[in-house]
Amino acid sequence: MTEVSEPSNRGADTETGIANTTAIQRIGAAEPLLVDLRPAGEVIPGLAEGDLLHAGPPLSGWTEACGALRGSIAGALVHWGNARDVAEAEALASSDDFRLLSANDHHALGTYAGVISRRTPVLVVENRAAGNQAFAALNEGRGKALRYGSNDAGTLARLAWLEGEFAEILGTAVRLSEGIDVFDILVQALHMGDDGHSRQKAASALFANEISSWVVEAGFGTKETARTLRFLADNEIFFLPLTMAAAKSAMESAEGIAGSTVVTCMAANGLRFGIKVSGLPGHWSTAPVPFIHGQYFRDYGPDDSSPVIGDSEIAETMGVGAFAMSGAPALARYVGGTPEEATRLSLEMYAISVAEHPRFKIPALSYRGTPLGIDARRVVEQGIEPVFNTGIAHRTPGIGQIGAGFGRAPLTCCSEALNAMQRRMHS
Amino acid sequence: MTEVSEPSNRGADTETGIANTTAIQRIGAAEPLLVDLRPAGEVIPGLAEGDLLHAGPPLSGWTEACGALRGSIAGALVHWGNARDVAEAEALASSDDFRLLSANDHHALGTYAGVISRRTPVLVVENRAAGNQAFAALNEGRGKALRYGSNDAGTLARLAWLEGEFAEILGTAVRLSEGIDVFDILVQALHMGDDGHSRQKAASALFANEISSWVVEAGFGTKETARTLRFLADNEIFFLPLTMAAAKSAMESAEGIAGSTVVTCMAANGLRFGIKVSGLPGHWSTAPVPFIHGQYFRDYGPDDSSPVIGDSEIAETMGVGAFAMSGAPALARYVGGTPEEATRLSLEMYAISVAEHPRFKIPALSYRGTPLGIDARRVVEQGIEPVFNTGIAHRTPGIGQIGAGFGRAPLTCCSEALNAMQRRMHS
Repeated sequence: MTEVSEPSNRGADTETGIANTTAIQRIGAAEPLLVDLRPAGEVIPGLAEGDLLHAGPPLSGWTEACGALRGSIAGALVHWGNARDVAEAEALASSDDFRLLSANDHHALGTYAGVISRRTPVLVVENRAAGNQAFAALNEGRGKALRYGSNDAGTLARLAWLEGEFAEILGTAVRLSEGIDVFDILVQALHMGDDGHSRQKAASALFANEISSWVVEAGFGTKETARTLRFLADNEIFFLPLTMAAAKSAMESAEGIAGSTVVTCMAANGLRFGIKVSGLPGHWSTAPVPFIHGQYFRDYGPDDSSPVIGDSEIAETMGVGAFAMSGAPALARYVGGTPEEATRLSLEMYAISVAEHPRFKIPALSYRGTPLGIDARRVVEQGIEPVFNTGIAHRTPGIGQIGAGFGRAPLTCCSEALNAMQRRMHS
Repeated sequence: MTEVSEPSNRGADTETGIANTTAIQRIGAAEPLLVDLRPAGEVIPGLAEGDLLHAGPPLSGWTEACGALRGSIAGALVHWGNARDVAEAEALASSDDFRLLSANDHHALGTYAGVISRRTPVLVVENRAAGNQAFAALNEGRGKALRYGSNDAGTLARLAWLEGEFAEILGTAVRLSEGIDVFDILVQALHMGDDGHSRQKAASALFANEISSWVVEAGFGTKETARTLRFLADNEIFFLPLTMAAAKSAMESAEGIAGSTVVTCMAANGLRFGIKVSGLPGHWSTAPVPFIHGQYFRDYGPDDSSPVIGDSEIAETMGVGAFAMSGAPALARYVGGTPEEATRLSLEMYAISVAEHPRFKIPALSYRGTPLGIDARRVVEQGIEPVFNTGIAHRTPGIGQIGAGFGRAPLTCCSEALNAMQRRMHS
């Protein structure tokens, strides 16, 4: 291990150093519990009729939406009964009836191109340490999924069941459980080959185990109960939105600390990549979306791929995902690399981080904590861009996922954020 | 990696080489399915009233039984209603009413000091490739368990529920499922930090997931169903006897190949360690039990430990367990080592193996197959003893598990086996 792979809080006694210490303490102390599953309109403050929450920094409107996002929105409007078919839905989506808003600005997250309206059932995660909440939609499983822009009849039929029967049963089970500790599961999953982002196989299995007895006690029919458990057992990525909402609740608890250069959010909207830093709450620093190094499913390649979109990079922002790939050798192949490369990428991230995570540990690194608290200053100084994992959708609406890979958050986002902090201090 | 860490089939064209190729092909081709859960008397051929199947090579009788085995047998006799208390049970156990027999000689396995009688519900695993069956008792969970010699009221109450309500529900679920593919789960678990022996956390979670919908469809009451699922979700070692029975079914399919020096069984009875090789079906080669390098629970140490006992070394015999520790970094600490040491031990095993397993792969070693087919000749030539993982019980009956560790199968077992083969060829 080289010198640059050690985390450090540069100038720990300065205002920024003290602020960054506060930030990482809050992130490390977060205790997110899954406490409910409710229509977003009932739980997300200020979400109005016609509002559509999407991933990444704000878009100006439909004309800026990438293919996968258009496919997802059109499918959602058919799913909600706003339109009879995809063509009608696309016309409607571009009308004044609907408004695109950044999910991240509403304590919520869009998984890849998925959108949230008032009708969408969302997982409610509460950070017991800070008292704040964050929200994400249910995961539909791999393959043809609305969040990747798929919107054919099969996709919408599964979604109707997921947001209907399944959500009703799971919601009842979650309320009976009095809260599922998301980080308790994530801590274990990082010892079981998950990165906590693109690989959620262990966490999804542990969650399905933990909730299964409550699903039974929810008291629905045998068929419905068995169907619910089978979906949970078969969906290896189910835990992703739980990780995301939990990470969001942890990262938001570290927002708004004056002088802190810790990155609290990284996300993409299919056009721009954006970050937020703690000392500039509400301010997005953006740059054009970066290239994704991908592993494509049969028959597809880079030319087919959508520009990157999604809020799931909140995982890396909190120190898991690509930051924890040294514990996830089986993921390397899925995102197009080797275990050695994945470990090297992960280790590099210590060089831009303030500390090591107190709870997320990697057994293969002799229980070293994952890199915690990306310092925008160190990104710029070291010239090392934060790495993140991601799925890849087809660029054409309606097709769905075609691969998975990893990318780098543009360095210019961090330099823009530092400049904006400078301007604000001197204005 | 040094030269000795490459597997090889020495003299592949000789009678022994050809026989060893046949052996590893049968082991690699095994397709074990969990198909049933029944009282042993209904499924284990020739098991008579009063027969007690124990781990390892045969014991001459009660006087040879170690403390943990005595505790287990006494507890079992109370559990079955043969005796009113442990004292009465010990007297009874040494009488002519009961007969100690090696489980391995009856297609069955004893987990640590656990015993099987006609009344014990056993997991029935069928190797679809070869058509043979193998059997193991249910796992009670960690801590106070009869298989570690515990026999207090709490241990026996849990056992009564496990072999009563739980076994009835799980058995119904297994039959409804039409078979659970044990190796399909094990293959995945080796990518998720399990070694396939002492760490069964991923496999147990995946199994609980897969069976959960069948448990619901079994149609028992809400309370009983929820209790069954909760036990499965909480028992991180539940999958161990499934692995053992599956491995046994694979290894027995490779028994009796004339001239083969592949080890088909390794097991300990608390006094002697024994192996079988393919070319000598039914013949045990034994030596005094080896020392166990252990990690002890608080308040305990090596002086308290039972001499090693158990049939779970069938896992290593098939190429998992300590042979796959390079993929299980979180296990290293539990058995008293570091991830680096565990990897080194695992890699050493290639030097005494015929080949690499076609299905059991280690992502961290770039998907290298685990060491498959211990060649008794290579053990002797290289002077490298097969390593195995194990739990550790207290030497005094009634106390239970006090740690976990690893040991080495005595080299003299292998040299005795080779000598016996020579004798048989020249007789």
